Amino acid sequence: MTHSLNLSKDRWGIPSGPAPIALKTVAAPPFSRQGRGQRFRAVACQRSRSLGGWMPTDIEIARAATLQPIAAIADKAGIPPVALNPYGKFIAKVDTHAIPDFDARPEGKLILVTAINPTPAGEGKTTTTVGLGDGLTRIGKSCMIALREPSLGPCFGMKGGAAGGGYAQVVPMEQINLHFTGDFHAITSAHNLLAAMIDNHVYWGNGLGLDTRTISWRRVMDMNDRALRSVVSSLGGAGNGFPREDGFDITVASEIMAIFCLAKDLDDLEARLGRIVIGRTRDKRQVTAADLKATGAMSVLLRDALMPNLVQTLEGTPAFVHGGPFANIAHGCNSVIATRSAMKLADYVVTEAGFGADLGAEKFFDIKCRKAGLKPAAAVIVATVRALKMHGGAAKEALGQQDLVALEAGLSNLTRHVINVRKFGVPPIVAINNFTSDTAAEHELIRNYCRNHLGVEAVICRHWAEGGAGAEELARKVVALAEGGEADFEPLYPDAMTLWNKLETVAREIYGAAGLAADNKVRERFAELEAAGYGDLPVCVAKTPYSFSADASLRGAPSGHIVSVRELRLSAGAGFVVAICGDVMTMPGLPREPAAERIHIDAHGQIEGLF
Amino acid sequence: MTHSLNLSKDRWGIPSGPAPIALKTVAAPPFSRQGRGQRFRAVACQRSRSLGGWMPTDIEIARAATLQPIAAIADKAGIPPVALNPYGKFIAKVDTHAIPDFDARPEGKLILVTAINPTPAGEGKTTTTVGLGDGLTRIGKSCMIALREPSLGPCFGMKGGAAGGGYAQVVPMEQINLHFTGDFHAITSAHNLLAAMIDNHVYWGNGLGLDTRTISWRRVMDMNDRALRSVVSSLGGAGNGFPREDGFDITVASEIMAIFCLAKDLDDLEARLGRIVIGRTRDKRQVTAADLKATGAMSVLLRDALMPNLVQTLEGTPAFVHGGPFANIAHGCNSVIATRSAMKLADYVVTEAGFGADLGAEKFFDIKCRKAGLKPAAAVIVATVRALKMHGGAAKEALGQQDLVALEAGLSNLTRHVINVRKFGVPPIVAINNFTSDTAAEHELIRNYCRNHLGVEAVICRHWAEGGAGAEELARKVVALAEGGEADFEPLYPDAMTLWNKLETVAREIYGAAGLAADNKVRERFAELEAAGYGDLPVCVAKTPYSFSADASLRGAPSGHIVSVRELRLSAGAGFVVAICGDVMTMPGLPREPAAERIHIDAHGQIEGLF
Repeated sequence: MTHSLNLSKDRWGIPSGPAPIALKTVAAPPFSRQGRGQRFRAVACQRSRSLGGWMPTDIEIARAATLQPIAAIADKAGIPPVALNPYGKFIAKVDTHAIPDFDARPEGKLILVTAINPTPAGEGKTTTTVGLGDGLTRIGKSCMIALREPSLGPCFGMKGGAAGGGYAQVVPMEQINLHFTGDFHAITSAHNLLAAMIDNHVYWGNGLGLDTRTISWRRVMDMNDRALRSVVSSLGGAGNGFPREDGFDITVASEIMAIFCLAKDLDDLEARLGRIVIGRTRDKRQVTAADLKATGAMSVLLRDALMPNLVQTLEGTPAFVHGGPFANIAHGCNSVIATRSAMKLADYVVTEAGFGADLGAEKFFDIKCRKAGLKPAAAVIVATVRALKMHGGAAKEALGQQDLVALEAGLSNLTRHVINVRKFGVPPIVAINNFTSDTAAEHELIRNYCRNHLGVEAVICRHWAEGGAGAEELARKVVALAEGGEADFEPLYPDAMTLWNKLETVAREIYGAAGLAADNKVRERFAELEAAGYGDLPVCVAKTPYSFSADASLRGAPSGHIVSVRELRLSAGAGFVVAICGDVMTMPGLPREPAAERIHIDAHGQIEGLF
Repeated sequence: MTHSLNLSKDRWGIPSGPAPIALKTVAAPPFSRQGRGQRFRAVACQRSRSLGGWMPTDIEIARAATLQPIAAIADKAGIPPVALNPYGKFIAKVDTHAIPDFDARPEGKLILVTAINPTPAGEGKTTTTVGLGDGLTRIGKSCMIALREPSLGPCFGMKGGAAGGGYAQVVPMEQINLHFTGDFHAITSAHNLLAAMIDNHVYWGNGLGLDTRTISWRRVMDMNDRALRSVVSSLGGAGNGFPREDGFDITVASEIMAIFCLAKDLDDLEARLGRIVIGRTRDKRQVTAADLKATGAMSVLLRDALMPNLVQTLEGTPAFVHGGPFANIAHGCNSVIATRSAMKLADYVVTEAGFGADLGAEKFFDIKCRKAGLKPAAAVIVATVRALKMHGGAAKEALGQQDLVALEAGLSNLTRHVINVRKFGVPPIVAINNFTSDTAAEHELIRNYCRNHLGVEAVICRHWAEGGAGAEELARKVVALAEGGEADFEPLYPDAMTLWNKLETVAREIYGAAGLAADNKVRERFAELEAAGYGDLPVCVAKTPYSFSADASLRGAPSGHIVSVRELRLSAGAGFVVAICGDVMTMPGLPREPAAERIHIDAHGQIEGLF
């Protein structure tokens, strides 16, 4: 099982509309993006039956919206015009240094939106993040949203963007999904500059004595291009250098993306860039980007990108969309700079983390919050009736029918995530992202189960179809939870624990595993990294997101499995050790009929086929 | 001789200050960028002797300038706020479709700035373009400037930017030289998307029957990275495709860059993209980007980039900086869209073309003007005393001394360019870009020679040290020339001439060659392209810019040489056939001590080492 899903972030996470009482006979909506229109039509029957019309698609909703000038959105967040660097009329980078007394401000409460293990049925984490933000705004709270930036490459593979959906979107969605403010291009440039400087150093005499067989710094491109996964470079004669094995990852898999998202400020960024280990010498000394004197130029390329990008939701809630690291070989959260800046600007900040809570929330807590000193006040665990039924054994084709047995069985997955989140001292709440096919009995079952067995609220949310109004109840309950004083955040393990024990703790406590397995070579690598002084770093697990186990087909809450560690990779600049427990695909390919073949500009200058 | 020079556009083109009468004993300024400070100090002695201070460096001048908000600059050019898409406070993309009655407007006069063959002594073409623009503004003319965008990659190789110099610069120079508005990143993405779609097509069954050995569409990166010149891709097993020889060019060498710069509008862009030939089938049918259904998605990636970028000179003259194709394997001019838009907005538009007039002006006339229907009103040929002395045989080390014999001999180079420009029906004028070491006798010799032997004005310009005030005389004389009604533009050869005859015409008429040589294989390629229907395209010559001949060391005005054609490349989308007459380097490398090692952000957040 490869992890290509996460390349498109939430490309499956598209829920359907609210339960239409008059529409119970409507066929279950399909799961693929391509089926969205059909799902929307079912909803439309309910919402505008009197008009006889259909509900519009995501892109139609986004285009029909009247966006507010970005200065007006900034003003809502108390960002003065002097701190705004506009990119077009509806996007701006925010220079927080230009905001008076910014650093001294108190910080608002941080709410994490996470989810059960993803299934093809869809959860809608980004959509819920946006909906909750709009809901908080509607109930009168000062609120900002902090999301990841989508990756460009996957747009040309499978159809679909990554900026929410329905009436819970951030806009302008076309720009956000394409070049946006160029952050990913800047990261690509900085990454490849280091790569060029490595080969250039070797070409001009290799003064550092780098063993070229050990160069682990590949190149990157923000493109789905399987032909670049594995190449031999520097061919063609002496003037082109020394041939060696090399390859490309997609930009979101760059360690620089993770560094960018974990850096507290420009100085921290530069320090982290300098610590990147790119290979080693024949006598096994680590060679860093600082050794190659690449740090300054990389920082120059990233300086402007480091300012968070301000956009708005369809309802005008200010949102930072900034940074987007992989959720497997990296930690999968938007930038610390954006999150922290939002917390200085609003009383409530809603953010999300990649994949389900076993990977996303764990890394959010153990990597991002630990290192940035963030203390989340509450966590929303998104689930859907459909996905829970899949976890309970229902077939994909049967999800449209009420199935209380499968649903109850599938609650095992939600249960473990609720318990896990509490292990970090963060109080959870469950958000059921409503789909057309949900029944009242199914909702009732979940609510009762959560209340009676987990001591947690489960709130039915309709933000996808109704915008913030559909998430007001969730918003009120999140406020109550966050203000309740329950939160007492603590990472799962201390820095001082060995890497092996950290990983074992995650496996046992979060995945429900019986233990770890690794061959001697991997065990030696653990020892090597400890000896080299990296033992105090947190671990970042790369495994399938679809199961608590390493087997993607094991839904629900499997227990007693063994987590096999296949490889350890050091991300010294990002500040974590990646434990690879499964196949990890860091450069996706295009499908047989890529979306790119259908994407075009229509006669009215509108982009078609992208969403 | 490889053409790496042109990667940095005018990286040598840094003139020194005005002749300081009291400073004749000051040592000749060095030629390298690194020596600029020294040159500036000599000037400073003259300009601010009473203050006892030094004249600041380019970057200091640029930083000390008080920039006007981009909306104020736009207002000068009659661009309403609704047509502005700001990128920060001092850069905007201009949506000309939002300007009322834009297409129906009359067009201003187009002035080309070109030069003698470049030497290490420096000419200052961009600097003169900016200075002339400011000079025209100062004498009360409505004026805009249209320049190329600099390439990112070379910034990390040799020190130096490409936005003019001294008091004749476009600003903000750091942004212009780094990511700017992301145009080059968009071009990189569009180029590499097509590359990915090619390999993906082959991977999924190769329905078009593409012969993978003939794939001529390489990949691109905006980076100096020799390791990528020649690679083998798709290694690592069946899942990664079919291994083949491949390689990367720098982004400015992409055919998409040339297409971007020659497209009249979005529709024309899309049509040109569709015509790109990427290889052929086993039965020798050409395979195009349209065959791969890549055109629409590539257009989507380029749509926003196609709007010209508005910036300002240090004196507030509006300038479009847009597009930057190679001057060897492409035509080396900024975008047609920017040039034409500027002509709708101003009475005078000053633009430039790459290299000396033998390559730059010829392609500007025979490719850009021919295809876009532009009719230039005058051409400024930039020369310096120092460069002319080099063309006359003076050693680099001796350029600081007056040498009337070498100077007179070197005027042969200028003479041929003057004669050449007239062959296009465009009246020329000579601009002598003043250096510290110039003497009055040298200036007098040039002026007299030009007046008496060439019937052309030679104007001494001091815009580098004095800004637009130093180019007022040039501005007045350019206006007189442009208004004189002398211009009657005509390309050098008709479309209907064969490709061979077109190339021979350029070689004889422009280079002073005795004729062409080519081996049978190349002659067959001429026939093949004629047979395939590409015979009506103009030719784009790739040869050394340093000499009229193919031998870079032959300065002055060599005659009777034979031009050897080594290869023909089809750029069907751009709409020209490239005739390669020498070594062409399409992916530069970094030097032993790349500028990147010194580039950094200082304690005040300023970028150091980039310029």
